[in-house]
Amino acid sequence: MGGTLQGDPAAQVSGVAPLDRADATHLTFLANAKYAPLLAERSIGVLLVTAELADLGNPRARIVVKNPHEAMLPLLPLLYPPPPRVPGIHPSVILGRGVALGDEVSLGPGVVLADGVRVGARTRLEAHVVLGAGVEVGDDCHVYPGATLYAGTRVRDRVRIHAGARLGSDGFGYVFREGEHAKIPHVGRCIVESDVEIGANTTIDRGSIDDTVIGAGTKIDNLVHVAHNVRVGRLCLLMAQVGIAGSVRIEDGCILAGQVGVSGHVTIGKGARLAAQAGVFGSIPAGETWSGYPARPHKEALRAQAAMFKLPSLIRALERLVERRRDDER
Amino acid sequence: MGGTLQGDPAAQVSGVAPLDRADATHLTFLANAKYAPLLAERSIGVLLVTAELADLGNPRARIVVKNPHEAMLPLLPLLYPPPPRVPGIHPSVILGRGVALGDEVSLGPGVVLADGVRVGARTRLEAHVVLGAGVEVGDDCHVYPGATLYAGTRVRDRVRIHAGARLGSDGFGYVFREGEHAKIPHVGRCIVESDVEIGANTTIDRGSIDDTVIGAGTKIDNLVHVAHNVRVGRLCLLMAQVGIAGSVRIEDGCILAGQVGVSGHVTIGKGARLAAQAGVFGSIPAGETWSGYPARPHKEALRAQAAMFKLPSLIRALERLVERRRDDER
Amino acid sequence: MGGTLQGDPAAQVSGVAPLDRADATHLTFLANAKYAPLLAERSIGVLLVTAELADLGNPRARIVVKNPHEAMLPLLPLLYPPPPRVPGIHPSVILGRGVALGDEVSLGPGVVLADGVRVGARTRLEAHVVLGAGVEVGDDCHVYPGATLYAGTRVRDRVRIHAGARLGSDGFGYVFREGEHAKIPHVGRCIVESDVEIGANTTIDRGSIDDTVIGAGTKIDNLVHVAHNVRVGRLCLLMAQVGIAGSVRIEDGCILAGQVGVSGHVTIGKGARLAAQAGVFGSIPAGETWSGYPARPHKEALRAQAAMFKLPSLIRALERLVERRRDDER
Repeated sequence: MGGTLQGDPAAQVSGVAPLDRADATHLTFLANAKYAPLLAERSIGVLLVTAELADLGNPRARIVVKNPHEAMLPLLPLLYPPPPRVPGIHPSVILGRGVALGDEVSLGPGVVLADGVRVGARTRLEAHVVLGAGVEVGDDCHVYPGATLYAGTRVRDRVRIHAGARLGSDGFGYVFREGEHAKIPHVGRCIVESDVEIGANTTIDRGSIDDTVIGAGTKIDNLVHVAHNVRVGRLCLLMAQVGIAGSVRIEDGCILAGQVGVSGHVTIGKGARLAAQAGVFGSIPAGETWSGYPARPHKEALRAQAAMFKLPSLIRALERLVERRRDDER
Repeated sequence: MGGTLQGDPAAQVSGVAPLDRADATHLTFLANAKYAPLLAERSIGVLLVTAELADLGNPRARIVVKNPHEAMLPLLPLLYPPPPRVPGIHPSVILGRGVALGDEVSLGPGVVLADGVRVGARTRLEAHVVLGAGVEVGDDCHVYPGATLYAGTRVRDRVRIHAGARLGSDGFGYVFREGEHAKIPHVGRCIVESDVEIGANTTIDRGSIDDTVIGAGTKIDNLVHVAHNVRVGRLCLLMAQVGIAGSVRIEDGCILAGQVGVSGHVTIGKGARLAAQAGVFGSIPAGETWSGYPARPHKEALRAQAAMFKLPSLIRALERLVERRRDDER
Repeated sequence: MGGTLQGDPAAQVSGVAPLDRADATHLTFLANAKYAPLLAERSIGVLLVTAELADLGNPRARIVVKNPHEAMLPLLPLLYPPPPRVPGIHPSVILGRGVALGDEVSLGPGVVLADGVRVGARTRLEAHVVLGAGVEVGDDCHVYPGATLYAGTRVRDRVRIHAGARLGSDGFGYVFREGEHAKIPHVGRCIVESDVEIGANTTIDRGSIDDTVIGAGTKIDNLVHVAHNVRVGRLCLLMAQVGIAGSVRIEDGCILAGQVGVSGHVTIGKGARLAAQAGVFGSIPAGETWSGYPARPHKEALRAQAAMFKLPSLIRALERLVERRRDDER
């Protein structure tokens, strides 16, 4: 950890806890003097602490580090090893014809694999996951309870799909004719590349003819909507409740904050950032940060918003000017 | 009901219906003269009505009250008693090791309880509910079909969790290093106190190290997102599609209207109200009502919006002034 | 197709693909010169193309049409016939008392039908669909995996309900009394008329006393929220993440773009259109297009937004004027 140990080098802990519920069995951390009073009341196992606060409390051991929160992150996998994989196929699993299962897969209760499904090695599908006909999931994936992958969806390796996510559902495409919204058949696919994580209850539609693609290493939060034919690049972050309309291109490394909406057929340039709730109606240049409704470059949006809140007094000043001008001209 | 009966005191009804489909077996209500024509066409069992409209129609019985809609609410549980609880464990239920079940629990088809789950007395888990390892659900709870509680989630008593809600999923936390978004392990819990109701397809993430907590008596609507480490106080109302980013504190008695977004690490003071679609980027003082994007005190936001729509004419007026000024100076 | 054939009239294809992955077994299309380079690299089966671009590439056959994309739509059902219906009741299906099943229904693994459910002819319920007591689903419907219809919900004919949709959940209605938010029992129904499509993870609450109704031929995208007592007319389009608060009336033929929010008790007039992210706080006249927050007629909103971004320079101009005026008066 690159820190300095004070106190008992034999101190042992079995978990991590926030300061307000840590005890002698826990490692915890203090990085801000305002939380110091919590320390006085507690018998702590190991305390990660900054040099400035290192004389506070009475933990069994203290490790002085520059950034206690960051220092703790590499410890978490040591203290909380992932639960051991228990390969096996629950007797209630339903297998279609021609299903191919990799080594050491784990299929939970009520999992349904339709005809022609392929599941890679060491992949875990939890209870009630449903994979439609011809779905392919790669190696070392983890699909949480109740997620659905519609027919034809392809997921590469080391992908996590959280509970209730829906991949490959039909896109929202209709043609109005003869007095009804006639459904456009959706025959494209939903493709998720490696090392992607998809949040709970998120929906990603299949393509209409083209495919919908989520690039490698991209992370998607809960309740996000990705429409048909969207291409999301590599290493993007899409935060909760973001909505992406059809045929949008999001290039590599973009960050879309919560509740952002992007309208159809635009391109978000490489590394661009969109602030929370931004409403995007045109393409965004690479590397820029945009915000607001309609979205504009962030600095311009901030200036306009600041001006908007000065407007009522501005209008009064202007009315006075006009009034005086009128007086002058009488 | 504190009302006055007119007509047949022996009139009987078996249900409540809106005026446009009520018949002689129904109790219905009329509070607004514009709906009176519907009454003429119908043979009604019992009509709740205001004094002003009490001479209309020909129901078998009429009860004159101050507020017909409010008067009806206490009648609903009498006319629609909740379906009788049928305790029992469906033969398809999957029980892990060390599961503890309270008296008279009801476990529907396909319910999965992982190792170490505890379910309190009289709690009902409907079809396909999945509780991860070590989940604790208290007494008299009702979890609707297909909801998922990830490992370690704790739910107190009399909590309702609607279909498809996901509690305790991993928060959206990554550190960018060595060319990838490395996942921060989430070892905090999701804790739901007593008398909470959680809407359909809502997602509440577990904490990273700290916990995510929903306070007693708080009600959460459908499709809401609550991120890691959020603390929601007691008796709050979070309406549909609200999104709360990480580590936000929402104090007791706050009301967040539909589609509100709150960015990370801010505090919403006790009893504050946020209007629909508000975008909150800083802390909100207790008791205040804020609205708009970026959110401002509601009156200030209204003034700024009103001014904004006057702007085009203001700009023209100003241009005329500048023009004249230039003329003057020639 | 009303086009002109060039090349080999015996050319055969077995599928449709976008230009960047089409080969000799595919039909594809070219409508924009910027994609022409993709054509050079490929051996294509059949190319739909406009007259202007008809000399490009070397497909086995070429069909010259006015609009290649539209021309392809009627071909899709020919090349991708829907998978044959396989009627049957999976042995894991749970049937309550008094369930009535139409001819040739298809009930997938883990489907649960509570007491008194009626399912029409040729309707398909996929894995883990749960229908509560007394639910009625009409003929030729398709309900995708994991959807839930709460007790009493009624769905007419030819309705598609995508994975994870929740219909008939309790509305968000409470009365604050004696220090708690007391739940208002919800005894209205959720009624979905014929030819409706409902997206993945969308939620539609039941009515409180009145019903929630979705009119015939209306299409609803993913992650939409429709609250209690809402009436949506016929042939509307509600795009992803739209939120409709309680007791709203949406008349026939309205289009609500993504992330629109409509507050309670207002009416959206026949054929009105709401632009993406619009925040609607009052009724909208028939046939109009509104946008922005708070929503205003679209042209007015555009003018105000344009003015807002001129504001900072306007304020500087005004300050100069006031300054000079002050100088004049010295």
